[in-house]
Amino acid sequence: PRFRETGRVVGSLPTGPANAITDVAGVRVGHVTLIEGTRVRTGVTAILPHAGNLFQDKVPAGFFRANGFGKLAGSTQIEELGEIEAPIILTNTLNVAEGMAGSVEWTLAQPGNGEVRSVNAVVGETNDGFLNDIRGRHVTIGDVRRAIETAKAGPVAEGNVGAGTGTRLFGWKGGIGTSSRLVDGFTIGVLIQGNFGGKPVILGRPVAAAPEQAGLAAAVSDGSIIMIVATDAPLSDRNLQRLARRAVVGLARTGSTMDNGSGDYVIAFSTHAGVRRTEARRAAVTAYPELANAAMTPLFAGVAEATEEAIYNAMTGAAAMDGNGNRLESLPISLLPN
Amino acid sequence: PRFRETGRVVGSLPTGPANAITDVAGVRVGHVTLIEGTRVRTGVTAILPHAGNLFQDKVPAGFFRANGFGKLAGSTQIEELGEIEAPIILTNTLNVAEGMAGSVEWTLAQPGNGEVRSVNAVVGETNDGFLNDIRGRHVTIGDVRRAIETAKAGPVAEGNVGAGTGTRLFGWKGGIGTSSRLVDGFTIGVLIQGNFGGKPVILGRPVAAAPEQAGLAAAVSDGSIIMIVATDAPLSDRNLQRLARRAVVGLARTGSTMDNGSGDYVIAFSTHAGVRRTEARRAAVTAYPELANAAMTPLFAGVAEATEEAIYNAMTGAAAMDGNGNRLESLPISLLPN
Amino acid sequence: PRFRETGRVVGSLPTGPANAITDVAGVRVGHVTLIEGTRVRTGVTAILPHAGNLFQDKVPAGFFRANGFGKLAGSTQIEELGEIEAPIILTNTLNVAEGMAGSVEWTLAQPGNGEVRSVNAVVGETNDGFLNDIRGRHVTIGDVRRAIETAKAGPVAEGNVGAGTGTRLFGWKGGIGTSSRLVDGFTIGVLIQGNFGGKPVILGRPVAAAPEQAGLAAAVSDGSIIMIVATDAPLSDRNLQRLARRAVVGLARTGSTMDNGSGDYVIAFSTHAGVRRTEARRAAVTAYPELANAAMTPLFAGVAEATEEAIYNAMTGAAAMDGNGNRLESLPISLLPN
Amino acid sequence: PRFRETGRVVGSLPTGPANAITDVAGVRVGHVTLIEGTRVRTGVTAILPHAGNLFQDKVPAGFFRANGFGKLAGSTQIEELGEIEAPIILTNTLNVAEGMAGSVEWTLAQPGNGEVRSVNAVVGETNDGFLNDIRGRHVTIGDVRRAIETAKAGPVAEGNVGAGTGTRLFGWKGGIGTSSRLVDGFTIGVLIQGNFGGKPVILGRPVAAAPEQAGLAAAVSDGSIIMIVATDAPLSDRNLQRLARRAVVGLARTGSTMDNGSGDYVIAFSTHAGVRRTEARRAAVTAYPELANAAMTPLFAGVAEATEEAIYNAMTGAAAMDGNGNRLESLPISLLPN
Repeated sequence: PRFRETGRVVGSLPTGPANAITDVAGVRVGHVTLIEGTRVRTGVTAILPHAGNLFQDKVPAGFFRANGFGKLAGSTQIEELGEIEAPIILTNTLNVAEGMAGSVEWTLAQPGNGEVRSVNAVVGETNDGFLNDIRGRHVTIGDVRRAIETAKAGPVAEGNVGAGTGTRLFGWKGGIGTSSRLVDGFTIGVLIQGNFGGKPVILGRPVAAAPEQAGLAAAVSDGSIIMIVATDAPLSDRNLQRLARRAVVGLARTGSTMDNGSGDYVIAFSTHAGVRRTEARRAAVTAYPELANAAMTPLFAGVAEATEEAIYNAMTGAAAMDGNGNRLESLPISLLPN
Repeated sequence: PRFRETGRVVGSLPTGPANAITDVAGVRVGHVTLIEGTRVRTGVTAILPHAGNLFQDKVPAGFFRANGFGKLAGSTQIEELGEIEAPIILTNTLNVAEGMAGSVEWTLAQPGNGEVRSVNAVVGETNDGFLNDIRGRHVTIGDVRRAIETAKAGPVAEGNVGAGTGTRLFGWKGGIGTSSRLVDGFTIGVLIQGNFGGKPVILGRPVAAAPEQAGLAAAVSDGSIIMIVATDAPLSDRNLQRLARRAVVGLARTGSTMDNGSGDYVIAFSTHAGVRRTEARRAAVTAYPELANAAMTPLFAGVAEATEEAIYNAMTGAAAMDGNGNRLESLPISLLPN
Repeated sequence: PRFRETGRVVGSLPTGPANAITDVAGVRVGHVTLIEGTRVRTGVTAILPHAGNLFQDKVPAGFFRANGFGKLAGSTQIEELGEIEAPIILTNTLNVAEGMAGSVEWTLAQPGNGEVRSVNAVVGETNDGFLNDIRGRHVTIGDVRRAIETAKAGPVAEGNVGAGTGTRLFGWKGGIGTSSRLVDGFTIGVLIQGNFGGKPVILGRPVAAAPEQAGLAAAVSDGSIIMIVATDAPLSDRNLQRLARRAVVGLARTGSTMDNGSGDYVIAFSTHAGVRRTEARRAAVTAYPELANAAMTPLFAGVAEATEEAIYNAMTGAAAMDGNGNRLESLPISLLPN
Repeated sequence: PRFRETGRVVGSLPTGPANAITDVAGVRVGHVTLIEGTRVRTGVTAILPHAGNLFQDKVPAGFFRANGFGKLAGSTQIEELGEIEAPIILTNTLNVAEGMAGSVEWTLAQPGNGEVRSVNAVVGETNDGFLNDIRGRHVTIGDVRRAIETAKAGPVAEGNVGAGTGTRLFGWKGGIGTSSRLVDGFTIGVLIQGNFGGKPVILGRPVAAAPEQAGLAAAVSDGSIIMIVATDAPLSDRNLQRLARRAVVGLARTGSTMDNGSGDYVIAFSTHAGVRRTEARRAAVTAYPELANAAMTPLFAGVAEATEEAIYNAMTGAAAMDGNGNRLESLPISLLPN
């Protein structure tokens, strides 16, 4: 079930209608889930900021490296130019290359992009090598293109789907989770790929880690969480970077201490039509609407709440899974605090 | 009382003997508290990494800007050189200048510093302008020197002392707080100057904000928390920066979302004798012991716990106070969650 | 003389009418020069982005730490909020405190600032301790206020004035220098406080270092250059940060390698009325004009040329000086390359 | 010819025996050059820090984003952990994915890496789309592996080889260039992939841009330079980051202003055996030798000189080339200043 369906609530702000990143109008999410034989448990999740030509109509964006033991691609151009021009792709650690190639090939092929010779693919990853034969590098360029092409608005599948197929959270089965908040007339949506360790905390209460957790401590490379934040508020890239930083507040409240072996990153973007960097605007002086610094605080609270709930959704939405000779149980609802 | 004296515990790691930053051997803390008439409620807190000549025997250090709406001085040289060469001074927003001057003058006057012509003073601040006549700029250079000169080891006074004299936390009276943790044979100590807002959370449970809190929301400039992290682990400046970043984990758990108007900064340093940058070592190739990246995770947990508890100590240790025509109540122990 | 008066030209872009930072309309510069007895050779330079209330009508700004062995104050808030709210003060290394205090006190005293309780003073410094009794800390808060209050538009005095009074460049006498460029209908102005070492290069040709230079190599702490960039182009704070980074291009061409002991910093701001952050705009959504990323390249060339020429002006504009038992010769015009 | 063979010298420091990055003992370079039909003009260059198992014996490293309009992969983990664990791959903009995949596959296949499930591939790129059918994405994973496997010590081919095959510099034919310097008993080597625009300057003298240059100004995406810095000095990752920053000094002296559309990045690493992060050292406290901050200045000069000369070598080493319907002339030696 979704966390909220168990009768529990995170924070005090209202959610959007789907309680998902897609509550931010225009945002679409696509999953390709790869479950094959006994060893392949992986996938791809694509997040598209809007339904138009992303390369031609770029969106302002911010990036935060919370703990950089990860292979995220595309961050330096986000930081320099303050924008994203391609779908955001999530997959496993050893298939970032295919994520990039799929994003590049899809972008080159879009109508109107016939002269494009430079694409900044943005790809995040977590390590699903416990349940998945990660060394087999099973994700293909075609899988990535399919995740992009099947992205859609509306409810978002959670748990063992897409890039969350084989992931692990606090020793329990993890996955994809999403949530949203309505703040000051704006919507904030968060989607996470959750795959990290530590001592789990839910709604401020310690929860038992899975029995398997103890033996996993030494696997320094297999943590990570990628957090994607979308909003329709007209934010500058600087304030999007600040918004991104607040996802860590939600993360911290679930018990994470951003461990050494974890690749914890946040990407935030705005879908507001007025801040979109269209071809015409990119060539001249354009007046971009911008929410003031002083108005950011409520949005910070929104992203913190939505991130915390998205992580819980990733856990409660994930069924137990066998793979690669290992097994992860799903978090029993009975363990949730009241 | 101290938070732990109320029978409550933060986290699972053991504390040092004083449960204070001074559990890190060599660290000394000095407070100068200024309470005069009806309007002066401010002060200075000085943290000295060791008892020797700080300028000659520098300590490696890391810095993190969690939210930079603040006037912290000295950060760029910490980032560039990875070291601290003067006491860390905390005071109010409009007296950072006096903090710098006091630190510089004291350093110039130390035996062996007769030829020193460059000192990187490190000064943090929070805005105590609710209870204090901050525009009067009442802290003097002499006050700062006195805080340095009276710094001592052992138990650290908390609450309405030093730089915490006039501060406010979640609408209740705030102040100075400290805590420590023992991890893997190392000690981690944290001292904070707490003065921020938001919806308070203690041990994961929401707590009532003070009645006054509602009316304070518009005061965008008066938040802030400065977090000082000390450890005797032999850390590189890079890993000290990473350690500093984890103080935010503890901060987030108390309810903060690092609001727009808040100056939230962390400084971390190591007191390990082997990493001290003495005159001889600064001139040549020196072998510095360094804890491996992979061994950092337990220390991250330690700093998160100690920061959270230090914030609680700042609240439970502070008595109600009148000043500047205003009043702040202390957090009633009865409101603490069980 | 000014460098250009010797018949030499830097680059290919035209200068503004005064070939000074004050060619950017509204920018004012004030110098207070302290030459007393045989040992005091220091001063203050203040740069005001516009003639209005700087605190109420903030300007967007960017910051770059090229080499952070320096005590620059105010950078973290510039980075977080993307703006400046006080005059930029330049002075010597050990008087940054007085620079801050002067800036704060002046700001608090301005009409309309009666309720201000938080001011982000921005102060840069270089070490003039070769000619100046820097340990005497001879700059007062009053000197700083005087530099602010006497700031004016029009031609800017160069060489041994203000914060450049006692400085040294490549072993020769250094000082304040300024220059400007006209680019794409915009004006870019640069003012520098030049006080660094290395092997001088002028217009691409090596120039003899002063005889004194050899003996100075060991003085690791006494380099530094602060570079202030002003423009009337409507730039976002992110693009101002990028503009700041290009001052280093001009610096590199004069022979600097940003040596270890040098505090090399750049601050850039825009005076465009449309990007000014007034009280009304700071509270809501405002449409700010912004020059596109793709239009930045010509401005980058402008700041590189103006910075290079400003450094030459600091040298050719400085007369020989005795002080503190030492002497610095001025660069003989006969040594300039043809 | 190499620049130095024309009788000209950059700077004053001596070069290593090969005047190449391979003068740093252990460093190996491999090129795969793809010239096929009329449209394929691209390739791969691999730089290996040492001849051992790079993943098991990581090298400390620093990273600098001079201008981030580029798709460089792997930077966030370098910044977080201060180390490199895979070959550095250079290729064209739209084949970064294949660069990553090749690096990952090669690493997984190395003896001793049978359990590796996480590899941080480091890939830089420039846009060779003027002479090369870049949209065809002609570089394969096999090409990348071949570049790694054929890497060798000794003289390094320059100009139209490897990742420099189709590149353009100041409108002339560009390519790969390398150079080295001996400083204080240490060796510094630089290798660059040069592909940027602007007004060329050689040895401080303006040089005619190629006739074609005028028409290229609008192609905002096709600049870029990747600069790789190797040294055998025992540097901390922080001082490697500082060293990386100085490559920009050399770049600036060639006329670059790091234009908006340019992806200008620097990666620096140390090959010193004592700072190598072996499996044993990564698990505990290790004493790493470290050159002091105060000893860095001569190395800064070395990297500036070597970068400048490497760029000149990329130009003088490149023959004219036709491709993709376009032609680039090589810089006539007669245009070099005397």
